[in-house]
Amino acid sequence: MASSILSDCSSCATSRLLPLRRALHPPPPRFRPSPAPAPSLTRPLSASPTPLPLLPRARRMAALSAAAAAASSADPATALADASAKIIDGKLVAKQIRDEVGVEIARMKEATGVVPGLAVILVGSRKDSQTYVRNKKKACEAVGIKSYEVNLPEDCSEYEVIKNIATFNEDPSVHGILVQLPLPRHMNDENILNAVSIEKDVDGFHPLNIGRLAMQGRDPFFVPCTPKGCMELLHRYGVEIKGKRAVVIGRSNIVGMPAALLLQKANATVSIVHSQTKNPEEITRQADIIIAAVGVANLVRGSWIKPGAAIIDVGINPVDDPSSPRGYRLVGDVCYEEASKVAGAITPVPGGVGPMTIAMLLSNTLESAKRIHNFK
Amino acid sequence: MASSILSDCSSCATSRLLPLRRALHPPPPRFRPSPAPAPSLTRPLSASPTPLPLLPRARRMAALSAAAAAASSADPATALADASAKIIDGKLVAKQIRDEVGVEIARMKEATGVVPGLAVILVGSRKDSQTYVRNKKKACEAVGIKSYEVNLPEDCSEYEVIKNIATFNEDPSVHGILVQLPLPRHMNDENILNAVSIEKDVDGFHPLNIGRLAMQGRDPFFVPCTPKGCMELLHRYGVEIKGKRAVVIGRSNIVGMPAALLLQKANATVSIVHSQTKNPEEITRQADIIIAAVGVANLVRGSWIKPGAAIIDVGINPVDDPSSPRGYRLVGDVCYEEASKVAGAITPVPGGVGPMTIAMLLSNTLESAKRIHNFK
Repeated sequence: MASSILSDCSSCATSRLLPLRRALHPPPPRFRPSPAPAPSLTRPLSASPTPLPLLPRARRMAALSAAAAAASSADPATALADASAKIIDGKLVAKQIRDEVGVEIARMKEATGVVPGLAVILVGSRKDSQTYVRNKKKACEAVGIKSYEVNLPEDCSEYEVIKNIATFNEDPSVHGILVQLPLPRHMNDENILNAVSIEKDVDGFHPLNIGRLAMQGRDPFFVPCTPKGCMELLHRYGVEIKGKRAVVIGRSNIVGMPAALLLQKANATVSIVHSQTKNPEEITRQADIIIAAVGVANLVRGSWIKPGAAIIDVGINPVDDPSSPRGYRLVGDVCYEEASKVAGAITPVPGGVGPMTIAMLLSNTLESAKRIHNFK
Repeated sequence: MASSILSDCSSCATSRLLPLRRALHPPPPRFRPSPAPAPSLTRPLSASPTPLPLLPRARRMAALSAAAAAASSADPATALADASAKIIDGKLVAKQIRDEVGVEIARMKEATGVVPGLAVILVGSRKDSQTYVRNKKKACEAVGIKSYEVNLPEDCSEYEVIKNIATFNEDPSVHGILVQLPLPRHMNDENILNAVSIEKDVDGFHPLNIGRLAMQGRDPFFVPCTPKGCMELLHRYGVEIKGKRAVVIGRSNIVGMPAALLLQKANATVSIVHSQTKNPEEITRQADIIIAAVGVANLVRGSWIKPGAAIIDVGINPVDDPSSPRGYRLVGDVCYEEASKVAGAITPVPGGVGPMTIAMLLSNTLESAKRIHNFK
């Protein structure tokens, strides 16, 4: 894996880049989590996982750092001997979060008898969507969340989808509802997503949640999973955010925009770079923290990066690779080979943000069940 | 007035500035519109006002520019002979908007018999709030909007306020509802503002409106009045936004945050400077467009400004002035004397953003009535 990443920014990969102005339009499906489930670490954590709400953040971060250090020699990502940046290991953090969520669910079940429930609605038969839904189901089972699934045919009506959402809204054993995107073209995403009860919107995409995220003094019911995962990675690796310059590349409703709002809420000075930005390289080079979520393979080069910056690479882009059995491999929005020599810390692709999205979905579902049942 | 503004950034004014880190916390009341009603121009517009929806934006801007040029010699703000920046004349634009709204209301009334209605709820007896409410009422009368007013005692209950909001929510003759802020301390602003029907929230402060403002592909029912006024000034003075660097200073829910979202929606590359920003001067100097909404007199000095930048100064700050009959005068967040020598265009204080807020409230109320009655 390491060697293929190292060749990502070579001339052949670069020549496939679209012109920046056109290329920066973010195609949402690329931000979905990697279809492959995150492989477990080859060595157990040296610090045993501890429940999320029981440890204060400082202690959790210290435990994570120790675990990361101990596990680093066994982690394939750290085999990059010439990279100076610290690897922000999403697989490791995601595993820790899943473990913490599992412990909390067991504690809740024992105290109240309640088991958190997540309902997923899948419309149509897209292969990638089916894979995502299967992975979510597996991840739920592993931590003790009960899965509910509805599969509707591609040609069903919007009304039918909304009727199913309404049933889950009323069902007290369901604490989170997720409509798998993309929906068939004849449906209006907005109508459908707005039908999800704000208290069960574990994806955090409802405009009321986004509004509360944007406003000072308000808190959303749920933070969208991928940007929440980005922030969790920064927090758990001890990256200071307050007072730092942050650049978010991409402004999608799913990642870029909520990530910028979260960084802003954490008191960073945030700039958003997008398809209409004239000098993205110059602006990005001022950032102490970069979140790249634009869906363009290797867009962010070494020259875009301030030495020592922390980089969270949300992009998961397939590039041609005849040597791979699948004929392609996955790379990020950041040219890892160049960036890892300049940055202070960086997420690899795969194995960075990808595994965090499902972990945060589990965390949001637990949070919802705890709130609904007033369990602390 | 001009000479007093010219002395704002002298040593005595500067010495009163708080240290930046402390000072940048925005005190919301300072963002309220100037208590004095905007004086009418001493000369009539050379281009006759035309209804907002009837003219395409380009023609409206051209008409405005011509009117501004014709009126400039009579406008006190343009008496600043040594200033190189173009004056963005909020009084002039606000008058034009009020005239346009008036024409549209007359057209609507004639066609449908419907008169737009605005309800204002005032709790307590703060002098400044009473003045604001009186000014809003006068402005409504002038354009043909029917005013509804409820005055509640300082010690009334939250329930009583919400009950009154509910009555206006149901009343078909009311198209906009506004709760005058600040509310007494024993009340929860959030509960009260959330009670306003999203379809009548002409202040645009409901989190659902803010969420829709933040999201791509969604539009809010209403845009908050002051930031909407800032954008209108930029548009009507032909300031290009797309692809430009914009810095918003201040991140209040009322002005800074929604202004940043609006600039972002108009395809600017936006950075938000706030109390935790370490190098506000350096970041602000990169901006082609500056919106200052932080409530600190003369914070933004000439050295903060890129030559030719467009500056919208939302601050209305009282500073001591023994020579004034009131003992104080109003200055902006931007040191006008210095800024007007560097900027390409700038709003004066008073007479810039102040008069725009009420004009946009009238515009939002008309918009609401048109939407509810499906009148194009």
